[in-house]
Amino acid sequence: MQGELRDLNRYPDRDAVALRAALADYLGHGLVAANVWAANGSNEVQQQLLQTFAGPGRTALGFGPSYSMHPLLAQGTGTRWIGALRDPDFGLTPDAAVAQLDEHDPDVVFLCSPNNPTGTALDSTVVGAVLERARGMVVVDEAYTEFRRAGTPTALELLPQHPRLVVSRTMSKAFGFAGGRLGYFAADPAVVDAVQLVRLPYHLSAITQAAARAAVAQRDALLANVEVIKVQRDRIVGTLRARGFRVADSDANFVLFEVGGDQKIVWQRLLDRGVLIRDVGLPGWLRVTAGTPAETDAFLEALT
Amino acid sequence: MQGELRDLNRYPDRDAVALRAALADYLGHGLVAANVWAANGSNEVQQQLLQTFAGPGRTALGFGPSYSMHPLLAQGTGTRWIGALRDPDFGLTPDAAVAQLDEHDPDVVFLCSPNNPTGTALDSTVVGAVLERARGMVVVDEAYTEFRRAGTPTALELLPQHPRLVVSRTMSKAFGFAGGRLGYFAADPAVVDAVQLVRLPYHLSAITQAAARAAVAQRDALLANVEVIKVQRDRIVGTLRARGFRVADSDANFVLFEVGGDQKIVWQRLLDRGVLIRDVGLPGWLRVTAGTPAETDAFLEALT
Repeated sequence: MQGELRDLNRYPDRDAVALRAALADYLGHGLVAANVWAANGSNEVQQQLLQTFAGPGRTALGFGPSYSMHPLLAQGTGTRWIGALRDPDFGLTPDAAVAQLDEHDPDVVFLCSPNNPTGTALDSTVVGAVLERARGMVVVDEAYTEFRRAGTPTALELLPQHPRLVVSRTMSKAFGFAGGRLGYFAADPAVVDAVQLVRLPYHLSAITQAAARAAVAQRDALLANVEVIKVQRDRIVGTLRARGFRVADSDANFVLFEVGGDQKIVWQRLLDRGVLIRDVGLPGWLRVTAGTPAETDAFLEALT
Repeated sequence: MQGELRDLNRYPDRDAVALRAALADYLGHGLVAANVWAANGSNEVQQQLLQTFAGPGRTALGFGPSYSMHPLLAQGTGTRWIGALRDPDFGLTPDAAVAQLDEHDPDVVFLCSPNNPTGTALDSTVVGAVLERARGMVVVDEAYTEFRRAGTPTALELLPQHPRLVVSRTMSKAFGFAGGRLGYFAADPAVVDAVQLVRLPYHLSAITQAAARAAVAQRDALLANVEVIKVQRDRIVGTLRARGFRVADSDANFVLFEVGGDQKIVWQRLLDRGVLIRDVGLPGWLRVTAGTPAETDAFLEALT
């Protein structure tokens, strides 16, 4: 124990490139270590991007409802947040996205795909249209992307043509590595270079780097559960639709559905039956996370 | 391996209080977990303090030459930095400190004790006078405090009477835990509460927390080297003074001495003889870090 602890008696930047290379290898698409940057969770990654490309006097725009931390990270970095909107059905068309960009001309655009908390990935025409029209950086938050349905694209495919595109990822979801706090992004190497201006020296511990490298190396085992969860996710979507519920398409490990009434009452009734799901603050809708087959059974039974 | 990695499949805030309690126990002085806050290195701790108590429209003041990150952290948080000055011999008297506070009325004051890069701890009358006069928060950066000479106080003693005092520490120096990235502070519980407004959710990984708890538990072994280093530090100070060098009093694990000429030339000559020390940018002075007795022998021999 003491010997292992003594191994930590040096600053941890020497190994950082090994983790970035491992993440690049995992991402594929011809990416290399110079394209990848890692930090303590995707929140820190996105905070660093805002510190670099936004901040006082600049603006960031996102299409809500979306990840609740985006506006908070903007506030924390002195960036003015512009709350653009998704369509009433939580979708986003290229025309609607571009019209709001034209209105606000933001310095940074956040796209969340699959979207949290609604679950649907963006069509690649939307990401393409935003990249075409945006003046500044476009950050696509793909925290849940490993759960996307077959045929759903990742924005990684667009990186070679778009030096202002940043694709943000996390090991907290599909890898089950939330306690390890490892977020990362892929982008043009110039973006990685720019982030060096704001990141704190030695921001990522040697232990976090080593554990994340181990998790990436063991990815076949750690990601095996993703397919199991997707099957349950699709089962929840299919069953709820068969029962007449309105359900958002899901590329994530959760399903958003309209309860047909006050979601607070339904949430409480489910809890009374021993099933805890999530009220994400969307009136009339609730979000259920896909887990084991038995958990799906319990949820679907409790909802009847 | 895969089982251990799967243990990381939850967010890490549940255990944070255990680490804070362990650090409080190490600090003593009647401190408890509610007095302690930990983050990824003392840079992040101090960044969080500036985000909480400074930022755009506010000012932070430090007495240079001192830790080079303080003004950079101010810049990164949009805080206007006021570069106050230590005396020409790198000391700081209560009168000189108070006069500069009266002139600038900063929102946050940084004191570094023992001072980096000069090595001398502040007299408690200086810290007391600053606490008496400062309108806002007073952060005493005690990164090197475990190396302080016998009889040198720590600002922890002043905490019960001063709710605007924050004492910042790190495990990177005396604990030899630089790769673990664990900085922390002790303060009134209201300060810890205030920092919750700016810290990122789950900012500190479960692995970092567990490793830091292990290091604190093994502190007798990990800190054993501190006394060895202090002996070498005192030997360097004594020998250099006996040879006629001007040397700053050192409460740290390094010694700042005046070379009697261009420090760049002396630095290069030492390197040519196989001894690498540090030019910290103070004209005419160099800084040598105390290590093993053999390293001290080599340095003192090369300097002749």
